[in-house]
Amino acid sequence: MAGNSFGKAFKITTFGESHGKGIGTVIDGCPSGIPLSEEDFVKDMARRRPGRSSIDTPRSEADRVEILSGVFEGLTTGTPIALFIHNHDVRSEPYEILQELFRPGHADYTYFKKYGHFDFRGGGRSSARETAARVAAGVVARKVLAPLEMRITAYTLEMGGVRAEDIDLEAINTNPFYCPDKAAAHKMREVISKAKEEGDSIGGIVEVRVSGCPSGFGEPVFDKLDADLAKAVMSVGAVKGIEIGAGFEAARLKGSENNDPITPTGFKTNHAGGILGGISNGDDIMLRVAVKPIPSIMKDQETVDREGRPARLKLQGRFDTSAVPRIVPVLEAMVAIVLADHYLRSRRYGVVE
Amino acid sequence: MAGNSFGKAFKITTFGESHGKGIGTVIDGCPSGIPLSEEDFVKDMARRRPGRSSIDTPRSEADRVEILSGVFEGLTTGTPIALFIHNHDVRSEPYEILQELFRPGHADYTYFKKYGHFDFRGGGRSSARETAARVAAGVVARKVLAPLEMRITAYTLEMGGVRAEDIDLEAINTNPFYCPDKAAAHKMREVISKAKEEGDSIGGIVEVRVSGCPSGFGEPVFDKLDADLAKAVMSVGAVKGIEIGAGFEAARLKGSENNDPITPTGFKTNHAGGILGGISNGDDIMLRVAVKPIPSIMKDQETVDREGRPARLKLQGRFDTSAVPRIVPVLEAMVAIVLADHYLRSRRYGVVE
Amino acid sequence: MAGNSFGKAFKITTFGESHGKGIGTVIDGCPSGIPLSEEDFVKDMARRRPGRSSIDTPRSEADRVEILSGVFEGLTTGTPIALFIHNHDVRSEPYEILQELFRPGHADYTYFKKYGHFDFRGGGRSSARETAARVAAGVVARKVLAPLEMRITAYTLEMGGVRAEDIDLEAINTNPFYCPDKAAAHKMREVISKAKEEGDSIGGIVEVRVSGCPSGFGEPVFDKLDADLAKAVMSVGAVKGIEIGAGFEAARLKGSENNDPITPTGFKTNHAGGILGGISNGDDIMLRVAVKPIPSIMKDQETVDREGRPARLKLQGRFDTSAVPRIVPVLEAMVAIVLADHYLRSRRYGVVE
Amino acid sequence: MAGNSFGKAFKITTFGESHGKGIGTVIDGCPSGIPLSEEDFVKDMARRRPGRSSIDTPRSEADRVEILSGVFEGLTTGTPIALFIHNHDVRSEPYEILQELFRPGHADYTYFKKYGHFDFRGGGRSSARETAARVAAGVVARKVLAPLEMRITAYTLEMGGVRAEDIDLEAINTNPFYCPDKAAAHKMREVISKAKEEGDSIGGIVEVRVSGCPSGFGEPVFDKLDADLAKAVMSVGAVKGIEIGAGFEAARLKGSENNDPITPTGFKTNHAGGILGGISNGDDIMLRVAVKPIPSIMKDQETVDREGRPARLKLQGRFDTSAVPRIVPVLEAMVAIVLADHYLRSRRYGVVE
Repeated sequence: MAGNSFGKAFKITTFGESHGKGIGTVIDGCPSGIPLSEEDFVKDMARRRPGRSSIDTPRSEADRVEILSGVFEGLTTGTPIALFIHNHDVRSEPYEILQELFRPGHADYTYFKKYGHFDFRGGGRSSARETAARVAAGVVARKVLAPLEMRITAYTLEMGGVRAEDIDLEAINTNPFYCPDKAAAHKMREVISKAKEEGDSIGGIVEVRVSGCPSGFGEPVFDKLDADLAKAVMSVGAVKGIEIGAGFEAARLKGSENNDPITPTGFKTNHAGGILGGISNGDDIMLRVAVKPIPSIMKDQETVDREGRPARLKLQGRFDTSAVPRIVPVLEAMVAIVLADHYLRSRRYGVVE
Repeated sequence: MAGNSFGKAFKITTFGESHGKGIGTVIDGCPSGIPLSEEDFVKDMARRRPGRSSIDTPRSEADRVEILSGVFEGLTTGTPIALFIHNHDVRSEPYEILQELFRPGHADYTYFKKYGHFDFRGGGRSSARETAARVAAGVVARKVLAPLEMRITAYTLEMGGVRAEDIDLEAINTNPFYCPDKAAAHKMREVISKAKEEGDSIGGIVEVRVSGCPSGFGEPVFDKLDADLAKAVMSVGAVKGIEIGAGFEAARLKGSENNDPITPTGFKTNHAGGILGGISNGDDIMLRVAVKPIPSIMKDQETVDREGRPARLKLQGRFDTSAVPRIVPVLEAMVAIVLADHYLRSRRYGVVE
Repeated sequence: MAGNSFGKAFKITTFGESHGKGIGTVIDGCPSGIPLSEEDFVKDMARRRPGRSSIDTPRSEADRVEILSGVFEGLTTGTPIALFIHNHDVRSEPYEILQELFRPGHADYTYFKKYGHFDFRGGGRSSARETAARVAAGVVARKVLAPLEMRITAYTLEMGGVRAEDIDLEAINTNPFYCPDKAAAHKMREVISKAKEEGDSIGGIVEVRVSGCPSGFGEPVFDKLDADLAKAVMSVGAVKGIEIGAGFEAARLKGSENNDPITPTGFKTNHAGGILGGISNGDDIMLRVAVKPIPSIMKDQETVDREGRPARLKLQGRFDTSAVPRIVPVLEAMVAIVLADHYLRSRRYGVVE
Repeated sequence: MAGNSFGKAFKITTFGESHGKGIGTVIDGCPSGIPLSEEDFVKDMARRRPGRSSIDTPRSEADRVEILSGVFEGLTTGTPIALFIHNHDVRSEPYEILQELFRPGHADYTYFKKYGHFDFRGGGRSSARETAARVAAGVVARKVLAPLEMRITAYTLEMGGVRAEDIDLEAINTNPFYCPDKAAAHKMREVISKAKEEGDSIGGIVEVRVSGCPSGFGEPVFDKLDADLAKAVMSVGAVKGIEIGAGFEAARLKGSENNDPITPTGFKTNHAGGILGGISNGDDIMLRVAVKPIPSIMKDQETVDREGRPARLKLQGRFDTSAVPRIVPVLEAMVAIVLADHYLRSRRYGVVE
């Protein structure tokens, strides 16, 4: 009811605030006997961590994931896996002004309206810091999916208007923008540097590709695989849109163009994005996600205080210039969580092996 | 777990197949004391019904909604409201070929893979006919929301490449395409006629606007209002994308352009689409939905049979040329259902009045 | 949230009132490919139906179960199975007095307090008639469990103070009280006749035994198998207590007496009632259920009207003298539903085969 | 699905094992603005803690509750409240034998069957230590209920065959058995000392009384208040039975004896235990819980090893002689959690004020 859980068979519940003790998650439904150690989280947490490049917020946290429960002698036990990431290096002073003024584009305004009392420091519960727990849960989700040998890959398709023309998955980790096109990555660096200089921020589009997902993931009607992916992705702060396969482009195609012909060796095209009637069809699952520019900017902005009186806000602190690179591992994690959930759900039918 | 329910406080469960006895829904969580009669459903069911224009499938069902439970002396009782819509005029013969061949772009293929045994007639459970139950549930959702005086309006923003330039809400019901721009509606008629002649189909984009939604709807983190809207909308067959507010366009804006300045009388712009941090901010909720062209076309298509052997498929029967006009009331219904759910969920906090 | 659903993997939602159009259930999560026809319900519905003996209410309904969805060509399809049982022979006149006065021991009082407006005729939603939907769902649950060859047997252990001393499962269906002891059944007939003459009612104790349940059903901590059984059973009207295995007697035993020694061929005793730590241990699952006397009696009773003024109530109509015999198939159904749910839940782990 | 969560509007998820890092809970759905500090937990945690008397296990943990999230400046924020209790003083050596042998009456056997791999130390996840998290959650539940001024009181009605004859709520905290009858408490001490000497254990019966619960808590059909109480209570390890109001005794009463007459000032008797049709009626909620003797005894027992070979087990370590006194605050907590959940659920209707 209160919205801090996601998934049915592989269910995660996250907790924690940006400037509280830390961020955590409880994973309920992970099968037993899966190898899991604190080291398994290091790589993904590092990919999400700020401070990877000059464009990120200078706050640098170790983001070490502590396993509080659910693992014994290096293997999961089928009981809840609680993970906790301590907050370090928390400087709340820059946020004191937020006790009075609402930041445009942020959740301060709506949290105040809904809860009356809320933790405004660094966005509190609505901070992107919460996604650290999602990335940690995503690591476990991938472990659940490991026997299926799927590959879930997210990358920056577009940032600040610069689009990757060439999709080379090998290039993704060669640049701090997770861009699959090295030339585009070069231009992205310029665009982001310029925005940073101006005290402004930029958005972008992330694409996620899942290879090797067997047919049969997804439930009919409401818990369609694409519907759950849409919810998972839209639940990440800064996301304003999602499309599956041809997406909005499909709205302009004719049926004869958009339908994917079926052949004995598979589908000839993939406008469907790997999903038909809400159930995976064995082809690559493809989705694209629109990410808005980070609302925290250094420019002077028009706002009101808690009493509704007009005010000017000029933020000071340390902010990312774009959510895009750091959101890439978060979106990968959310897609993995949805797939792990539907994998376990499908197993009750004995259909997916 | 099996995915045929939606919502938490206002929960709907739908059932039924295209060529079975009928389609129904059970609504659990509707408060008591709300006036409800079978007449209340007539208008919305008529808006969704095929046969409204020359572009729709000629199958014409009365689509009368029967109230099976939950209403006594004209008022809801707080107990489950079961609604049932009988299937009439069902001709299954045209579908017999589907026992052997998969229709490209349809769920036949994935249902066969997942369930082994499934009702292939007219798409069975995956048919758009299921949305009749959603529209019926949407009528009840609007009743729940009635004290708030919200207006939920969906309309065809684009169809077959023709875009409404002028948004005049008064014009929506003056044409069979639910298009808010009469001139565009005229062109849509031409485009759709041409596609029909060619035995082809077209897609489009539907926009939904909610006015009068108070601030405070939505839960943090996973059950964000926009996340639940994304799931609700993506769960409707033929939908391939959704964007909130500025949506994909936001990915190309700078923070200083995208942030909505706050003033004592409200937000100056509405790039956020009425939602901040997953919670409604009091401004209009705006979303756009990409609808693919209907996969049932009269053209010869490449496919396989159930044994995986190559085959050619040329459908015969009665099909809509576009899902767009008929999906408009369905999307309105899904948005109403999400809002009714979050309205009741918010009431446990006593915040929304 | 509103409480009309039960189960997670095998989920039932019931709807309907005693004097409305009928009673129904939607089952979500039943696997595909299971043979199911309307004939399958006849036997169990007949066991629950009133009019089996002189002790039951004379209202005699055919209670034919209509399958509205989810079955195609005689097999389940994995989509929701909606079942509907029409109400016939409904005489509401005797209930008109209930529009003014609350019946002691009934839900009229609390429904009025909670909902303000409610269907008072025959108890409306709180009527035992609702259990017809449970029995129907139980038939499907048994079909799901069929490959496991479990036996779920409920019987009257005690009624009106007469206790079955000899438990002969073969005797259960030889008498209208579902009593496993023919001699006790004879005495029960006398006791019940006497109560009926006096315009009074009696209660009893039902025992349920499940043989052949494999080890591994049940989840730790909250969804323990015994916890779910307790909820399922206590959710049936008239039930006031439940015990598992030795139950309340265990409270008086020493650990050395109550512990069941484990041997290579199984447990030596079964004080645990087949459940350890909330998970089935392979031994017979044993539970006992306390059923209160039916509150509808012909005697003059003290009550109040809706305005809280003192009043006298003397019911007239047709009532059972005891809920016990008719509750037996209902409890069997609820136990089957819990087991089907946990069977499907266990399958996601691949543990139960 | 995996069973480590309880509640819908006030939802708790517990995690942790007896000999792992600690025990915790995440509470989702607690309203904002409620005063909460770590000191608030001290009293209830102390009541549950071992070492209160000579009868308890000598393991003495501080059981300090750490608030990890959800509280800001001393008030709840409406976001998840994560609570953590570190395990200290954990000696795992005595449990090494359990790697080979199953303890009769414990969950070792079923956890091994279900999970293959499990944390056997001290019972791992199935240990009574898990209830520390429930007691902590119960503290928050009482805070939610505070405006209603309910009193939830549990006490030892019977232990080792000694029954409290006189119920004096003031006496409960004057003896280590939470017995409301001082004379009975004296006898309980003798009985428990004798059992301890013999290396044996004893069970008992706990009664819970809730005063001041308004009418209207509970949902019809499945989520009846008594059904949820039954599940909550039965989910506590060692519980083997529950009865509401007259309970099993009601099975032997006539309707004319069991019905509670209604008067302008309330109910004349309370056989119903404060619940009619699953909804609270405003009278005291009364329930009794059967607690089995602790299965960990010092006596020689018959069992098998993991390969199924016969073996003898003689436990050594530190065990309570009875679960009864320590289970009293746990049952109070579970009842508080159920009531907080139904309080918030009822508020969506605006019925309970």
